[in-house]
Amino acid sequence: MMSYISVLTLSFLSLIFALDSFGQEAKTVFIDARELTLVGKVRHKGPFYHRLDTVATPNLPKAVKALATHSAGLAITFETTSSKIAAKWCTGSRVPTDNMTGLAVEGMDLYIKRNDRWQYAGVARPKSHECNEVEIVANMAAGNKTCLLFLPTYDETISLQIGVDSGATISPAGNPFKKNIVIYGSSIVQGASASRPGLSYPARLSRETGLNFINLGFSGSAKMEIDVANLISDLSMDALILDCVPNPSPEEVLTRTADFVTTIRKKHPKIPIIAIQSIAREKGNFDTEVATKVLLKNNYFEAEIKKLQKHDPNLYLIYAEGLLGGDQEGTTDGIHPNDLGFDRMLQKIRPMILKILQPYGI
Amino acid sequence: MMSYISVLTLSFLSLIFALDSFGQEAKTVFIDARELTLVGKVRHKGPFYHRLDTVATPNLPKAVKALATHSAGLAITFETTSSKIAAKWCTGSRVPTDNMTGLAVEGMDLYIKRNDRWQYAGVARPKSHECNEVEIVANMAAGNKTCLLFLPTYDETISLQIGVDSGATISPAGNPFKKNIVIYGSSIVQGASASRPGLSYPARLSRETGLNFINLGFSGSAKMEIDVANLISDLSMDALILDCVPNPSPEEVLTRTADFVTTIRKKHPKIPIIAIQSIAREKGNFDTEVATKVLLKNNYFEAEIKKLQKHDPNLYLIYAEGLLGGDQEGTTDGIHPNDLGFDRMLQKIRPMILKILQPYGI
Repeated sequence: MMSYISVLTLSFLSLIFALDSFGQEAKTVFIDARELTLVGKVRHKGPFYHRLDTVATPNLPKAVKALATHSAGLAITFETTSSKIAAKWCTGSRVPTDNMTGLAVEGMDLYIKRNDRWQYAGVARPKSHECNEVEIVANMAAGNKTCLLFLPTYDETISLQIGVDSGATISPAGNPFKKNIVIYGSSIVQGASASRPGLSYPARLSRETGLNFINLGFSGSAKMEIDVANLISDLSMDALILDCVPNPSPEEVLTRTADFVTTIRKKHPKIPIIAIQSIAREKGNFDTEVATKVLLKNNYFEAEIKKLQKHDPNLYLIYAEGLLGGDQEGTTDGIHPNDLGFDRMLQKIRPMILKILQPYGI
Repeated sequence: MMSYISVLTLSFLSLIFALDSFGQEAKTVFIDARELTLVGKVRHKGPFYHRLDTVATPNLPKAVKALATHSAGLAITFETTSSKIAAKWCTGSRVPTDNMTGLAVEGMDLYIKRNDRWQYAGVARPKSHECNEVEIVANMAAGNKTCLLFLPTYDETISLQIGVDSGATISPAGNPFKKNIVIYGSSIVQGASASRPGLSYPARLSRETGLNFINLGFSGSAKMEIDVANLISDLSMDALILDCVPNPSPEEVLTRTADFVTTIRKKHPKIPIIAIQSIAREKGNFDTEVATKVLLKNNYFEAEIKKLQKHDPNLYLIYAEGLLGGDQEGTTDGIHPNDLGFDRMLQKIRPMILKILQPYGI
């Protein structure tokens, strides 16, 4: 994963200054984040902050192509001795929908490794919808820190510079996550409605397991088209999670699931593929049409996966019942989990996923 | 609490139509929510959707006066046989800050009673920042439903109409919550960063306990001024919770806590007053200045409350340690709990609060 970043360039090394000999508060010096380590991307082609190089895949549905430019699940990792971390970044001009925070859509959040665990350190608040400059954390104790900065989930990251004290060192860190586990899914995978990027469920899975969960969530557009199956087939991956029941119609679930899985299976004959039913839609607590539709889709999906399982020992199914808890408080809008819903979901599916992956040496 | 709504007016009764005899989908008829039951307000004076009548309290700090116009914690309750619920509403022109959703700031969420429990039914999405008309839930089974619609937490509700099927009945419901427990506090009490109004912590406490928790959260402005103490003193209440350490400076905590409590105590000599320390600020995980300041405020608050407790057997202190859990994932921005943080906080403080209130017959 690190190979695409070669050695430190001279322009980068010139940023490593001596400490301020007058004991003044150090000025902030910025470095282009492309000189650091990008994680969360399965194939490093095309624009740096796009999840996929959609130019190379002209047949993708238009909505998927647009969403692949969003930096959901991508993060920058680096080491620094700085007492503060700042950021200058520009995104597309999207504005948050009513069910998301600006922080999740176009902001960033920083984690720092401490006691062998990633701990929250600060947020980069988007004050405008395009370009911003903010301090993420300050007044940190001396010493080297390994940092992980999650990028905006629902917008394109156009540019990013990381700011540190002028006397501090900053250098790329190694990718902290092993293997590639691709998660294909809907807005729920992309990050709605986590309150900030690092709380999206693939990002939490990565931090909590040390495995590299690749976010291929496409809001409203994970409909199992055959061109998407072909694209996923071409990726280098150790496992695949399919959380793609929420977006297609019941008929699409019925007619597309087998082709989708079979297409990917051709190029990845032995990897574990984990299919997850759609979480409950709390919108269906009283809306009987919504409830019936989700039930139908989950039943179709289960039936299709079970048929395939007869000849595929590496295909798994996770049932969705109870994933959001029993009190109906786990969603923002009856559709997308809030941080509470995501936490409940992870408490259940994380051990299931790890148990499935373990015999594969993952 | 119900007394200010007298009998149904004729204009209201005229809305109760016969069922559509052609079996067509019923048209939506709107009724002004002021003809239904408002809950969450401790004193029904002044503008209907303002939490407090600030005209009657000219000495209040300017920010508190402005925030008292926000409808945080207010809800409309009613009974209806309608198969759908719609809303037309107008708010002030505030736009969400980066750490909140539009749904929380200027949207609404509906709960319906089922199996003796309030269950999520739908959201009213704000499509614009001022006036909106949306369907909240549809396709509901026949029968009478008791509904509870939480109003916007971070904006003024200027007008609200509830829409039902033209053939359905709609009438005010009784206030489902007993007693008045006022919670005075910061943005965290007001509702930041719950993902929708009904998930703010006072609203959750009301639904989960059947007690009427009154939201006097004033974002950034709960600084224990003596004029605020006088205002709170004048309210009719059965208990008071003080969650007001986050906003004042350490010096203000030290110099204002005793006067604030003593002022209120004069008019409420025997009610339980529960003081809560500030939750951890995850922003202080690495920012040593933030961590030190929160610790100092909590220590000052504890010391002041303990001094008062020597002569006040009805004053209680809840320590904040561990309220957000141990993984630092319980906030949106290092300051405000997300729905996960609020859930963890409630799991701990709800039983503590109930245990304190129980001997008072509350």
